Amino acid sequence: MIERARSIVERSDTPAGRRFDLFIQLLIVASVLAFSLATLPDLDDEVRVWLKAFDDVILVIFTVEYLLRLGLAEKKLKFVFSFFGLIDLIAILPFYLSTGMDLRSARACRLLRLFKLLRFSPALQRYHRALGLVKNELVIFVSTTLLLLYLSAVGIYYFESEAQPEAFGSVFHSLWWAVVTLTTVGYGDIVPVTPGGRVFTFIVTMIGLAIVAMPAGLLASALSEARRLEREEREQLEAGDASAQT
Amino acid sequence: MIERARSIVERSDTPAGRRFDLFIQLLIVASVLAFSLATLPDLDDEVRVWLKAFDDVILVIFTVEYLLRLGLAEKKLKFVFSFFGLIDLIAILPFYLSTGMDLRSARACRLLRLFKLLRFSPALQRYHRALGLVKNELVIFVSTTLLLLYLSAVGIYYFESEAQPEAFGSVFHSLWWAVVTLTTVGYGDIVPVTPGGRVFTFIVTMIGLAIVAMPAGLLASALSEARRLEREEREQLEAGDASAQT
Amino acid sequence: MIERARSIVERSDTPAGRRFDLFIQLLIVASVLAFSLATLPDLDDEVRVWLKAFDDVILVIFTVEYLLRLGLAEKKLKFVFSFFGLIDLIAILPFYLSTGMDLRSARACRLLRLFKLLRFSPALQRYHRALGLVKNELVIFVSTTLLLLYLSAVGIYYFESEAQPEAFGSVFHSLWWAVVTLTTVGYGDIVPVTPGGRVFTFIVTMIGLAIVAMPAGLLASALSEARRLEREEREQLEAGDASAQT
Amino acid sequence: MIERARSIVERSDTPAGRRFDLFIQLLIVASVLAFSLATLPDLDDEVRVWLKAFDDVILVIFTVEYLLRLGLAEKKLKFVFSFFGLIDLIAILPFYLSTGMDLRSARACRLLRLFKLLRFSPALQRYHRALGLVKNELVIFVSTTLLLLYLSAVGIYYFESEAQPEAFGSVFHSLWWAVVTLTTVGYGDIVPVTPGGRVFTFIVTMIGLAIVAMPAGLLASALSEARRLEREEREQLEAGDASAQT
Repeated sequence: MIERARSIVERSDTPAGRRFDLFIQLLIVASVLAFSLATLPDLDDEVRVWLKAFDDVILVIFTVEYLLRLGLAEKKLKFVFSFFGLIDLIAILPFYLSTGMDLRSARACRLLRLFKLLRFSPALQRYHRALGLVKNELVIFVSTTLLLLYLSAVGIYYFESEAQPEAFGSVFHSLWWAVVTLTTVGYGDIVPVTPGGRVFTFIVTMIGLAIVAMPAGLLASALSEARRLEREEREQLEAGDASAQT
Repeated sequence: MIERARSIVERSDTPAGRRFDLFIQLLIVASVLAFSLATLPDLDDEVRVWLKAFDDVILVIFTVEYLLRLGLAEKKLKFVFSFFGLIDLIAILPFYLSTGMDLRSARACRLLRLFKLLRFSPALQRYHRALGLVKNELVIFVSTTLLLLYLSAVGIYYFESEAQPEAFGSVFHSLWWAVVTLTTVGYGDIVPVTPGGRVFTFIVTMIGLAIVAMPAGLLASALSEARRLEREEREQLEAGDASAQT
Repeated sequence: MIERARSIVERSDTPAGRRFDLFIQLLIVASVLAFSLATLPDLDDEVRVWLKAFDDVILVIFTVEYLLRLGLAEKKLKFVFSFFGLIDLIAILPFYLSTGMDLRSARACRLLRLFKLLRFSPALQRYHRALGLVKNELVIFVSTTLLLLYLSAVGIYYFESEAQPEAFGSVFHSLWWAVVTLTTVGYGDIVPVTPGGRVFTFIVTMIGLAIVAMPAGLLASALSEARRLEREEREQLEAGDASAQT
Repeated sequence: MIERARSIVERSDTPAGRRFDLFIQLLIVASVLAFSLATLPDLDDEVRVWLKAFDDVILVIFTVEYLLRLGLAEKKLKFVFSFFGLIDLIAILPFYLSTGMDLRSARACRLLRLFKLLRFSPALQRYHRALGLVKNELVIFVSTTLLLLYLSAVGIYYFESEAQPEAFGSVFHSLWWAVVTLTTVGYGDIVPVTPGGRVFTFIVTMIGLAIVAMPAGLLASALSEARRLEREEREQLEAGDASAQT
């Protein structure tokens, strides 16, 4: 009996388990949509009532699901303090505690449920391998990016703070400019106007483009390397099988 | 007789077929240009009349072409429900039905004809192969991008909705900000102003840059891998030919 | 005597030829700088006179250089109609013809001289090879980009032209939006405001990012392939030398 | 005694040396944070006093550190004129000379201390190797980018200077537009409005995207090549060890 329940709730390689997973994931997406709809400012009162009711139903289902998982887990404490165990708890807990708390932050927490959707993706393995291959380079680039952001902010503060005391009021204001510029988002809310600041922007973006865009390139080439390694391993396995058969 | 007509209309590897294809493709481009010109607001009335007349002529030719293709097709139903059969029909049908319908959407459909231009491109094959190589990774990245977009929208809504109730009015308004920011388009129509929102933007763009720019890198490296595979196959074929000759 | 002159003017692998080349290239940069300075609106009259005089001196030198090259060329017609022969002529001709012509376009032509700077760069060879490797893919991507730009423009025109008749006045106005958005420049001068237009923008940028950013990735991986091919050829050559010596 | 001090101050592979390094690096970050906080315009006077005091303490420590390094260095002159020796000096010198100088530029210099954080990073070696592999290509692309920037600026000046004499006042104003556009930052402070200027922008960005984004792609593929070379060398070394043992 418990074995049967476990095969449904805990495993996703049985037909019933797959259907259970799909049901929960659809509920997560539905609850997230309901949460998003509820933030619309010009919403009908009747709709708001329905959304609230839907929210309550989902809350009950998620609570039952959490208790089921807890009850079926062989090591209960390990489940409670596992990543998804904590997310599941955070997603339902606030509604039982929320007498005096800020409800809003509780709602935001519930979104972490979405990560469940990625829980069983098999293709993530290759991605993990690629991340492992370029971990050291990524650390270098993230630190270089942070350093470059800071130096850019100080540089532009030096050039622009007198001409635009409002926009480039401090190094922290300038950091916002550095983020917006070096990621090439370029909102245009803060723009250098002095010749010095513009020449500085040119130099910084030229260097920055090569550094900020690097992680994507690194991961892309690491992924094709991970694919190659997988193929090689498969071939070795097959070669081993073939020689074992002869 | 029918064989001759088929070699012109259906095939593109005969001289006459090639000329027929080129003629139709030029007409498609011309009809699209005429459609575009007709949207100009300050157009001369005389020009508008000419464009209308040109439109009618093209419609007649495309109708004749459709009937020809239909008459020559061996399996008529298969042609009617094939991708390009449907596009060809959608492109001419509205003009015969458009008594009460919205003409505008009909015109937009006609543009699908442009896809015909890519119908016979031989270099697309390598692109298809590359897509096949990285299909799984692309699915991962598209889902991660969607998830990241949504979480970014909720996060910025949390930080900015009080300071800018107009621009960040709901999670859906914030989604627009997330799209514009994570693609690094950065129109600047909605910009975070609170310190929390700006720090959040920094973190989200740093993560987002690596994820959003990945598909291009993936496809690029997959294309060079597809090119390598092609070369290997060609070499194996040549090696096979050489050993067959000896 | 003519041989000596040729070794200076036409070749860049002799010490004198190298110095001559460097002198001409410095003059090109100087003339370009002078041209740029002359466009400054709040320039002193005296400075303007000096710039004009400097311009005249450079013109004389470039004319002498052109006549020298023409006189020393073995096949005079071939030189006149070669790429750099034509650029050299275009750069000096307008000043002798410019009685009634628009002087401005003449000045713009002179800038083509800058291409001379790249004339003898040896590292360009690898770049040419890489271009050759991915030529077909580049053609595909450029056509797909053009098609995508056009379809995006029509789509956004369909969604936004009623809400913003000024900004999205015709398909051609919308094309400007498509260019600014799909290249992720995102000036923010034209921005979709309707929900339909924004969802459309999201879909189009998601597809567009993968396509528009591809050429850079393609060229980058082709360059590393070209480098690999070069190394292999060098190794084969060395292996050939080694076996010849034994 | 001196040996003991050297192992702490100069080396970072001893436990004591590591702790000394960490202490100095934390101080650098702290001094940089203090400098940034001091630029905030609406800062409390009391806080400002504390920041000033903290600044003085750090200055004393850095001075002691500099004198220690100088005293322990075997070749004193070499240390004084080394890159980090000069940075260390520049970081403390201004405070002893700053009777009449501009204090601000002195503060900016102090930030170079941050580079010390990267001094001992071992993963930088692979990055250097990758840079060496693509040095020539990078030079080509930087020159091409500069040339493209200049030609774009002249082109847009030609198209837009009459329509917008303020924004595109000279080639130098247009250069700012070219930088903002070709890096795809796209602030939107200067935007072409004439049809000619917009078509020109389209062509230039299409070419520019492929060129400006190249360095990141080049470096990414060079890094994966450097990783491959490292692995090969390691394997050769291991093979050498194995054959030596037999």
